[in-house]
Order: sequence, then C-alpha cells, then structure tokens
Amino acid sequence: MAVYTHVTSEQVQAFLSGFELGALTSFKGIAEGVENSNYLVVTTSDRFILTLYEKRVDAAELPFFLGLIDHLAHRGLPVPGPVADRTGALLHRLAGRPACLIHFVDGVSVTQPAAVHCHAVGRALAQIRGAAANYKGTRPNSLGPQGWQRLVRACADRLDDIAPGLEAQVSDALSAIGAAWPDTLAHSVIHADLFPDNVLFLGERISGLIDFYFACTDIAVYDLAIGLNAWAFDASGEHILADNAAAMMAGYQEVIPLSPAEQAALPLLCAGAALRFLLTRSYDWLNRSADALVTPKDPLAYQRRLTHYLAQANL
Amino acid sequence: MAVYTHVTSEQVQAFLSGFELGALTSFKGIAEGVENSNYLVVTTSDRFILTLYEKRVDAAELPFFLGLIDHLAHRGLPVPGPVADRTGALLHRLAGRPACLIHFVDGVSVTQPAAVHCHAVGRALAQIRGAAANYKGTRPNSLGPQGWQRLVRACADRLDDIAPGLEAQVSDALSAIGAAWPDTLAHSVIHADLFPDNVLFLGERISGLIDFYFACTDIAVYDLAIGLNAWAFDASGEHILADNAAAMMAGYQEVIPLSPAEQAALPLLCAGAALRFLLTRSYDWLNRSADALVTPKDPLAYQRRLTHYLAQANL
Repeated sequence: MAVYTHVTSEQVQAFLSGFELGALTSFKGIAEGVENSNYLVVTTSDRFILTLYEKRVDAAELPFFLGLIDHLAHRGLPVPGPVADRTGALLHRLAGRPACLIHFVDGVSVTQPAAVHCHAVGRALAQIRGAAANYKGTRPNSLGPQGWQRLVRACADRLDDIAPGLEAQVSDALSAIGAAWPDTLAHSVIHADLFPDNVLFLGERISGLIDFYFACTDIAVYDLAIGLNAWAFDASGEHILADNAAAMMAGYQEVIPLSPAEQAALPLLCAGAALRFLLTRSYDWLNRSADALVTPKDPLAYQRRLTHYLAQANL
Repeated sequence: MAVYTHVTSEQVQAFLSGFELGALTSFKGIAEGVENSNYLVVTTSDRFILTLYEKRVDAAELPFFLGLIDHLAHRGLPVPGPVADRTGALLHRLAGRPACLIHFVDGVSVTQPAAVHCHAVGRALAQIRGAAANYKGTRPNSLGPQGWQRLVRACADRLDDIAPGLEAQVSDALSAIGAAWPDTLAHSVIHADLFPDNVLFLGERISGLIDFYFACTDIAVYDLAIGLNAWAFDASGEHILADNAAAMMAGYQEVIPLSPAEQAALPLLCAGAALRFLLTRSYDWLNRSADALVTPKDPLAYQRRLTHYLAQANL
C-alpha cells in the first residue's frame, strides 16, 4: 500500500512521449496494490494508472496478465485495458522497472456488499469465463493444491501459534480436499482474487474489474467458489450472508449455468478456496513485520469459512 | 508518504452528504504528505483532496492553516482552497480524525527547476506576502532560532555521527546567526516550506501552491531566503544555480521590492534557512527507522548551503 519506486514528472513526461496521449497535467502516487508502485496519471486526453512492477513480480508473467486484460477489455467487459505505445507494445520500462499504463475507470469498492452487488459480481465472473475462453495465454495456479502444501511447509509448524488446533485442521483439510479435488471439471482462465477491493461500482453497476495479477488457468467454477468466500460472509467469517450467496449464484448462472458436476463440486471448491486464503493469510500473519504499514488480515476469518464449507461438502 | 487512516467508500459517501458536491465516483489513497492521510476524491461535480490529519498535527492549529489557504484562494492566488460544508465549516471530522476537503488542481512538481520556474516562484512568494498582509491569523514559527536550539539539543551530541565537525559548525552558526538575527524587519505570514514538491506547474505557469502546514508569522523576506535554499542549488548543495537565484530575486521584486535593510539581511536569513533545514534533516537522519519507506534526505546538502551563505554574510 505504498509507492516503492519514485519517479519524477520529468521521467513521466519522457515516458509519455512514447504514446499519443497528450501532455501530462497531473500525477500522484497512489496507495493501492500491495506489491507494485502505482501512479494516477492525467494527461490532456485522459486518465490512467501507471504501474511499475516491483521485484516480487515475475516479469516473465506480465505478458500473460496484460494480454488477458487487453483481451477482456476488447470483449466488452468492464476491465480497464492496457494502453499500447506508438510501437504497439503494452509492456514498457520506466525507472528500471517493467511498467504498464492502464486506462483509469471511475467507481468505488464496496466494503459491505449487498445482494445486488453480489448478483453483478456473479455475472461478471461468468462473463470473464466466457470471454477468456478463447484467450491463448495459460498460467498455472501457483496457489492451487500443490501450492497449499508449500504454504503449509512455509508456515513451519507455527499454525498453532495463530490458534490452537489450526495445524491439525489444516492438515486434515489438505488431505481431504486434495484427495477429492475435481480436476476433471472444465478449466479456463480465472481471476482467482475477485474480492470487493478488486471490483469498482458506480451505484449498483460494475464499472471496473481490476487487479488480475493472480489470474491463472484452473477449474473454471473455482472462481465462483473464491467469489462466494469473498462476498458472502461477514468480515469475521462467522456468518454466511445467504442472500449474497444466492444472488451471486443466480448472477453467474444467468450467464453460464453450472453443469451438474460443477454444482456438486461447489462446496468442495469453496472449501479449497477457504483453505487457500487461510494459508496465505496465515503465512502473512506469521511473517508480519512490527513496523509494517499494512496490518495482515485475520486468518481465522477463513478458518471459519473452511469449517462451514467442509461441513457442506461432507468432509 | 502513505495512507495511515483507512476509510471506506461508504464512509466517504456519508461524509460527502454534508456537502453539495454530487455523488462519489472515485476515491484513491494517495502517497503524498509525510504526516497525514490523503485521498483523491472525485464526485460528479469536481475533484478534491481529502486530508485526514494524523496525530502529529496539532488540531488547534488547523483553523489557522485552513483559514490561510481559504484567504489566499479568495485573493486570486493559485492556492487550492478548502471546501465548506453545508454549515459553512472548513474543518470536519472523519474516521475519528480532523478532516478537510480541498479543491484538486492539475499540475506537476518539477525536480530540476529552471530559471523560468524560479522566477514564477519568486513572484508567488511575494504575492503570498502581499495577500497574507490582511490575514487575521498568527502562528509563531516553531522552527525559528529558538526552535533551532531545541533541535540541536534533540540531536543530543550526535551531529558528528553525520559528519565530523558538524557539531562545532552548527554551534558556531547558531551563535553567530542568532546574535545577528534581524528581528526588526517587517513580519508577515509566510509559507516557510515552498520547496519544489509544494509547487505545481502546468508548463511554466504555477497552477498550485500547496502544503501550507509550516506556515507561520515570521520575518517576511525569510520566505524568500527559504525559497533560494530550496530552488537555487543542485541536489547535493555543492553548486549554487546562479540563474535560478537571480530569477527568483527578480520575480519577487517585481511584486514587492526589497527594502535596503531586507536586501542587506538576505545572506544572513539564507544562512538561517540553511541551518533550519540542516537541523530538521539531521534530526530525521539520526532518528530514521531501518524499515521506513521514506528515506531521510541528506542533511549535508544543507551543511554546504550553510557554509555558502555564512561566507556571504561574513559570519
């Protein structure tokens, strides 16, 4: 949530000379995205987000991400697309970093989503699935079942420091979910992180789907499972918001009806998604820095979701 | 350079209901200002900077600052002014913090100012002096000669950790400048921190003078001395940029000619300004945190300016 690489107005002006976007009228570092440096750039023609990719991002993966948002933006989804320079390139360099310029879209994230928002997000998840079907790029999900095992090892027997019994619950869940994982379901490119902070709304309409940097090729309906985890619980994870869940399911199926196999696998996929966020949050929690500006999110909010979905999946 | 207090779109929407500014269409935390949390807020009517004042700011001083920028904005200076709510108040509360909404202005800061920029800044400094003359508020300069002595004590005999001999040079300068300080010169409200990052340009024209949170009542021409320190040296402080200095002097005197006494005192005031920034930077340097996102600026760039101006002042 900070600007790591600082650029000057002179650097941004020189950078913009590679585009046909008019003259620079404003730029501000914005506190958005945990991993990259972002600037709001305004020119005489339009507004943009300039992203400088920091070292934690694998530059080799950027063409997949930028190609994907370009693909989706050209297919009518409310995905702000990357801007090509005069040579047609989407990926640039600035201040020694890979860089990208993305159209700015109005809209704000909701923090207490209502059913109407969830319905729109369900539709959007299915629309992403539909529009991504003919996207050429592929990217393995590094945070799928094998990634979960790596995360457990990285937590190095300290899960019980977060909550007594968490280690055993995670170990059991990992075995049970891993054994039943429905890898034969249809795959597609998925967003894989469509949380409320990655959806911009103007009123009840989605104006922007952003932050595709976890996008990957995985079980298509797993994106819906992540969405249900993200939108259909209160912040503590203690209470499922049944109206939100039903609205998201309905929205998704208005665009792409689930197959019987997908329908049957959904509780298991939801449990997998809960486990994925439980593990990344646990890792961040155990490795938090006392000085950090970003407070790690409570892992136990996902332990509660996991418990909920394991019961639903009869695991 | 971060957002310390996080607010949600729902909070901002509720906050905006106290104004007549249309509906919220976008808000982003911006990495601007070391001490406060700032958001770029866009509504259907206009763009604003929303500032939440963090604990280091003395809330009792905010009416002075907000009244000042309101005063200057109404007198035609390119100072983005605060927005009154329906009750006419400029100072509000949000998320438990004092808060203010200020008009957004286009423009970018230059990091390598040319003489043309310095000429404009010289004019602006004199225009601030002229327009502030009938501003009712007063505020002592906590970073004047008495403040310097407090800063030296706060550095607790560690100045030589920054550079051998710095302690003795500072001690001598403090005595010499303090003894000669021209307190009888005309006083006014001054900006006191008009560095390049606090001036927005569109081309060669100033579009915004910002960040008045060091403004205070002091020797009027001391603001010009601070400006010369800030704009008329290279970053290392080793080389004076004579064209920049001359342009700033000329710009200032186009608006308000210096009196003979002010002219005579200027090298001494410049030495005082150099000492002030040497001391605050030294304090920040000695108290930097290993994890801090903000790298403290090099204090020695101001030791060199101090040496330069002490010689000019025959001290």
